[in-house]
Amino acid sequence: MSTDDAAPQSSTQPPAPAFDPAVRAFVAGHRRQLVDELSEWLRIPSISADPSYADEVSRSADWLAQRLLRAGFPSVEIWPTAGLPAVYAEWPSGDADAPTVLVYGHHDVQPADPVELWETAPWEPLVRATEFGEELVGRGAIDDKGQVYFHVVGLAAHLATTGRTSPAVNLKLIIEGEEESGSLHFAELLETHREALRCDVVVVSDTGVYGRDAISVCVGMRGMVEVALDVRGPSGDLHSGSFGGAVPNPATVLARIVARLHDENGHVTLPGFYDDVIALTDRERDLLARLPYDEVRWLVDAQSSATYGEKGFSTFERIWARPTAEVNGIWGGYTGPGGKTIIPSEAHVKLSFRLVAGQSPSQVRPAVTAWLEMLRAEGTIPDGIEVVPVYDKAGVGPFLTPLDHPALESVTRSMARAFGTEVLYTREGGSGPQAALAAILEAPVVFLGVGLPDDRIHAPNEKADIEFLLAGAEAAAYLWTDLASTWGR
Amino acid sequence: MSTDDAAPQSSTQPPAPAFDPAVRAFVAGHRRQLVDELSEWLRIPSISADPSYADEVSRSADWLAQRLLRAGFPSVEIWPTAGLPAVYAEWPSGDADAPTVLVYGHHDVQPADPVELWETAPWEPLVRATEFGEELVGRGAIDDKGQVYFHVVGLAAHLATTGRTSPAVNLKLIIEGEEESGSLHFAELLETHREALRCDVVVVSDTGVYGRDAISVCVGMRGMVEVALDVRGPSGDLHSGSFGGAVPNPATVLARIVARLHDENGHVTLPGFYDDVIALTDRERDLLARLPYDEVRWLVDAQSSATYGEKGFSTFERIWARPTAEVNGIWGGYTGPGGKTIIPSEAHVKLSFRLVAGQSPSQVRPAVTAWLEMLRAEGTIPDGIEVVPVYDKAGVGPFLTPLDHPALESVTRSMARAFGTEVLYTREGGSGPQAALAAILEAPVVFLGVGLPDDRIHAPNEKADIEFLLAGAEAAAYLWTDLASTWGR
Repeated sequence: MSTDDAAPQSSTQPPAPAFDPAVRAFVAGHRRQLVDELSEWLRIPSISADPSYADEVSRSADWLAQRLLRAGFPSVEIWPTAGLPAVYAEWPSGDADAPTVLVYGHHDVQPADPVELWETAPWEPLVRATEFGEELVGRGAIDDKGQVYFHVVGLAAHLATTGRTSPAVNLKLIIEGEEESGSLHFAELLETHREALRCDVVVVSDTGVYGRDAISVCVGMRGMVEVALDVRGPSGDLHSGSFGGAVPNPATVLARIVARLHDENGHVTLPGFYDDVIALTDRERDLLARLPYDEVRWLVDAQSSATYGEKGFSTFERIWARPTAEVNGIWGGYTGPGGKTIIPSEAHVKLSFRLVAGQSPSQVRPAVTAWLEMLRAEGTIPDGIEVVPVYDKAGVGPFLTPLDHPALESVTRSMARAFGTEVLYTREGGSGPQAALAAILEAPVVFLGVGLPDDRIHAPNEKADIEFLLAGAEAAAYLWTDLASTWGR
Repeated sequence: MSTDDAAPQSSTQPPAPAFDPAVRAFVAGHRRQLVDELSEWLRIPSISADPSYADEVSRSADWLAQRLLRAGFPSVEIWPTAGLPAVYAEWPSGDADAPTVLVYGHHDVQPADPVELWETAPWEPLVRATEFGEELVGRGAIDDKGQVYFHVVGLAAHLATTGRTSPAVNLKLIIEGEEESGSLHFAELLETHREALRCDVVVVSDTGVYGRDAISVCVGMRGMVEVALDVRGPSGDLHSGSFGGAVPNPATVLARIVARLHDENGHVTLPGFYDDVIALTDRERDLLARLPYDEVRWLVDAQSSATYGEKGFSTFERIWARPTAEVNGIWGGYTGPGGKTIIPSEAHVKLSFRLVAGQSPSQVRPAVTAWLEMLRAEGTIPDGIEVVPVYDKAGVGPFLTPLDHPALESVTRSMARAFGTEVLYTREGGSGPQAALAAILEAPVVFLGVGLPDDRIHAPNEKADIEFLLAGAEAAAYLWTDLASTWGR
């Protein structure tokens, strides 16, 4: 990679040791196995958001459990929840002072719609040549099955190249099955198995690097709360000629509600929404500003022709360090072919709020209630219209790794060796159950992820760069040795 | 009926003659035939808005043509169009000075969705007892098959009770098959058959009375233009975590566009939209204000708990004499079960504008264009978002019958005899092809309609009051005699 356009991010970061030829050769020799086995797993449509796919999520858990047993884990369990099952595996080091590491990932995936926009069948993974090597296209390729699977190869490399018969750390894996549907039962699962999950550090493999030419480690993620608003007006659809102009139209009112979600500066209008946001320090803003940012390229990844957002913040600040409100879906009335001139009885919107450090998911519900009361008082919601917020899930909290944590240094070194480059620091705009992991297990959380910004996660044509999956395996192989040697308890 | 709460509407309206016992007895004796035959017709789902129902619309035309042949029309034709077929029938009077009357109706119907809200099967018509008699429930019962069919019974009554072997007027029927999808080819059809359709007056049977206790004749209808807006942002759906807050969200922008459709007073914001509106005169406002208006009851018919609309206008003025903009449907992003935290690539809305006397459908398209330019200039539509208006149809013009027209007096008398009550004047908020009829055929248009405000046209559980359909038949029987005796050419 080239770092011409990026100043060294921290003068205190020592140069990383060179890569280990044995580890690299082992990983390269397992490229075919990675593609074949991961493809087998990707063929299972383990969609957690759609209840009709529950059996597939179970099949996915079974597949992973079998694979981990074959990898040598002496203990593999499927942990049922009130929802969908997680997979747990454990392999003690045997060394008395080895630290205990818990790897987190998930085996459920997003739905594939709109299916018609896929260039390949979403559940028939396909290897395609790219200008950089090869990519594996399919739902879950990078989010998150690919990033769980690289640990299988990484652990085998670690064992084979160190000559060990057990990992250098006490290794535990918790691979949940409800991440893409809001980790509804994950906190409960952590509570139930708190003893088994006890660890010194959590390694989360569900994130990405800044870019192909800017390898980075994620140090924070946004939280999220989803809410649907059901807007109800007339008790049935009405003829828009006979009644149009004289009764409130729920779809119009819904549009006005959504239009009031942000003010003219792009700030979210929920009362008190920003009260507990931990503002970026000058140093943090400086660090983010030092990441190479090419707006033209960022827009290519964003498939957009222009940036847009909260006034006074850069794109990185907007997606990583600022809370947001977005419309994920909107519907109401007649949406079929031709026309149907009705005033619809109902209209609906699915909203999601991304949260940043300092904010809590539990604050969103009362804020939405207060906001709807405000909209009622100001007349945006008129008499004759009822608005009901619906929460399916509790939401997930935001998370930020302390920048000076020793486990973060181990991850940084391992990534630097695998990618042969200095490692920068980023955050992730997405959401994960990391807050629950940190809070319930009382352990620090670090991120080992190799996704790329153009991997199209949650969208049609999701893919994983095969070179990046292999580098992830290599970094994992280094990480167990590094953590054991520098960070025993 | 009681007129206690309604002052006589016009002191110049002479008392109507009493009803004709022979006509009434004939019509009453054909009640069972009306229910059975109309039900047979209603079982044909002649939905014109959905191309997959084209065969059903043809079946409906065939059914009607057969029925009119059996009624005695010497000439019945099915007139194909570039879209869906119309039915034409003609029965000359034989009297040299008989006026020529063209009856207009339509045999296509609205879609039945949302089907789950029907209490009966929409295509299996059912007679239900009500506190007033009986109603026939099914799609098209009143809009408009019921109102076409009552002419079959009315004409039979006219012939049987006058002893005539042909009608007292030269009777023509044009029953189109595309009214519910915007009468796309109706103007062309009228042009093509202008000679055959030549007439002295058009009688439109596709409207309603003011209420069960306030029988009225409609003197005007609103026009309509429909437009869909396609709002496009990112070229694919995006992860709302990775990109949320930094790119424009098409669903959010769509909401802001719709929110700007009206100002704070409920006025439509399209530039120049009101420029050519013929304002209500003081006398017209007085006449409308004299109609009995019971807001509680109106709200029951509107299935709403509150009125809402343009400031400074009454409910009648809002629905009959003021142009409107309504959302008929809105959609974009993920609308399935569970959640999918995306920024959608596209969002869409179906809008319809109702027009009043003075306005022309052709003015709406440039006004929408200017409006979108205004929204772009003010920043409501940001860079990165494209908005494309889509027009499937040319729209229909508004219509207003001159209040002093002699044919309107004949209709008023015939309705007064059939219902045994003074007849008031209303307008209709809906839209129809009357403007094209009047403009192309250069003939005055009057309305003979017996729909009720609670007939749920275009909505689930559409019904027709059987007593009102029979009264419509009776009024039609009188009308041919009245027109022939008072309004020969």
